Amino acid sequence: MSHVARLFVEQPLEQGAAVALPEAQSKYLLRVMRLTEGAQVRVFNGADGEWRCSLSIDRKTAVLTPLEQTRAQVSGPELTLLFAPVKKARTDFIVEKATELGVSAIQPVITDYTQSQRVRTDRMRLLAIEAAEQTERMDLPQIEDAAALPKVLAAWDRAVPLIYCDEGGDAAPLAAQSNQLSGKPAGLLIGPEGGFSPKEREMLRALEFVIPITLGPRILRAETAVVSALTLWQSEVGDWQQAPYLPEA
Amino acid sequence: MSHVARLFVEQPLEQGAAVALPEAQSKYLLRVMRLTEGAQVRVFNGADGEWRCSLSIDRKTAVLTPLEQTRAQVSGPELTLLFAPVKKARTDFIVEKATELGVSAIQPVITDYTQSQRVRTDRMRLLAIEAAEQTERMDLPQIEDAAALPKVLAAWDRAVPLIYCDEGGDAAPLAAQSNQLSGKPAGLLIGPEGGFSPKEREMLRALEFVIPITLGPRILRAETAVVSALTLWQSEVGDWQQAPYLPEA
Repeated sequence: MSHVARLFVEQPLEQGAAVALPEAQSKYLLRVMRLTEGAQVRVFNGADGEWRCSLSIDRKTAVLTPLEQTRAQVSGPELTLLFAPVKKARTDFIVEKATELGVSAIQPVITDYTQSQRVRTDRMRLLAIEAAEQTERMDLPQIEDAAALPKVLAAWDRAVPLIYCDEGGDAAPLAAQSNQLSGKPAGLLIGPEGGFSPKEREMLRALEFVIPITLGPRILRAETAVVSALTLWQSEVGDWQQAPYLPEA
Repeated sequence: MSHVARLFVEQPLEQGAAVALPEAQSKYLLRVMRLTEGAQVRVFNGADGEWRCSLSIDRKTAVLTPLEQTRAQVSGPELTLLFAPVKKARTDFIVEKATELGVSAIQPVITDYTQSQRVRTDRMRLLAIEAAEQTERMDLPQIEDAAALPKVLAAWDRAVPLIYCDEGGDAAPLAAQSNQLSGKPAGLLIGPEGGFSPKEREMLRALEFVIPITLGPRILRAETAVVSALTLWQSEVGDWQQAPYLPEA
């Protein structure tokens, strides 16, 4: 792929308007990447498209000046991942993979069998930024504060189907239900290790906007189920008919 | 899921024939799981089905006696994952996830852009065993020694389609090609970070058993591409129509 650094910034991007980077990003470009005055960097902010920028250095601060817009702003489909936090490394992984797989929002939910209640949304946001930079996304997923499952369900927009991975054995594959899903935003709910409690399954199954799906005969870990279910949704009703964006090297 | 420990052993399993476990597994059952004399353990060896066993302790050795066969031996579809080794944590992840997603064999391939040439097949086998125990599999994937891509392609059975994930932008989704794939064993080839070299892409595209597929508009890391592509294959032509196996608690 391209070897030109790609960076998410918080500031507005417009031609000629220099952007001074905060300390961490300055360090990354100058010390880790060892870029020098005049180097080119690809920059996006989730609103103004992607810009080819030129680097200048003001003492220890990296300053980027947008030269030309290389891509217009686009967003992927509206897809919210609801997941029950698991151990740290696996939660990190879920955030990274969900960002790669194009979710528009990530909502941690606390369920009956959720082991780790501590959710660091600041850390999740940093991981999402890094993954978005890598994956040629033009936007970031919105990271929501953790909330209890019943509260999230009570506030859910009933016009939006909520897919959940049910290990009970009688759910149909997502592909068999894609007519109910196509052309609509969706939510995708993945339980913790150990799945949902009987009470939660009953609650979920009673809601008419909830669509149970199966992920096959083997038991998947939570983070595998996240990637598998997001893949099936993107492939069936999302944007995977589109070709990859390939930046010029 | 079930809280009964599930263990892969190397020894044959038949009713009443006691199996003395090696040191590492004895330690795991007695010290980590803190099981005591008479505890029940579920055991499989990839050949004789799954057995409910009873634990006895001979000094520091755990001994398992098969009481009854709880499941007959079954195998998943024939699916070989060919992947280019990446950094250690991500290679570990690929082996774990491929096992969860039911591959029958894992073949590390060295490609032009492969960064880490060091492949520890012994470590890969341990990770596969752990994942198989977790995921209710009845067998292990075969772990092959690493080999150069051209050598693997030269030895490939031309009757077996080899799917590869092509970021070139003109490949069709797997679902559109499932008629060429159904009812057959398959191979799935995932390149390293940076993809395949132009020479490799040319070589792959010239082989009539090779089927390029797309994984959508965002660039996926190698380990994400592994999970996504295996999901699509299992869902389209593999065994994901089958319900999960749920052990009794």
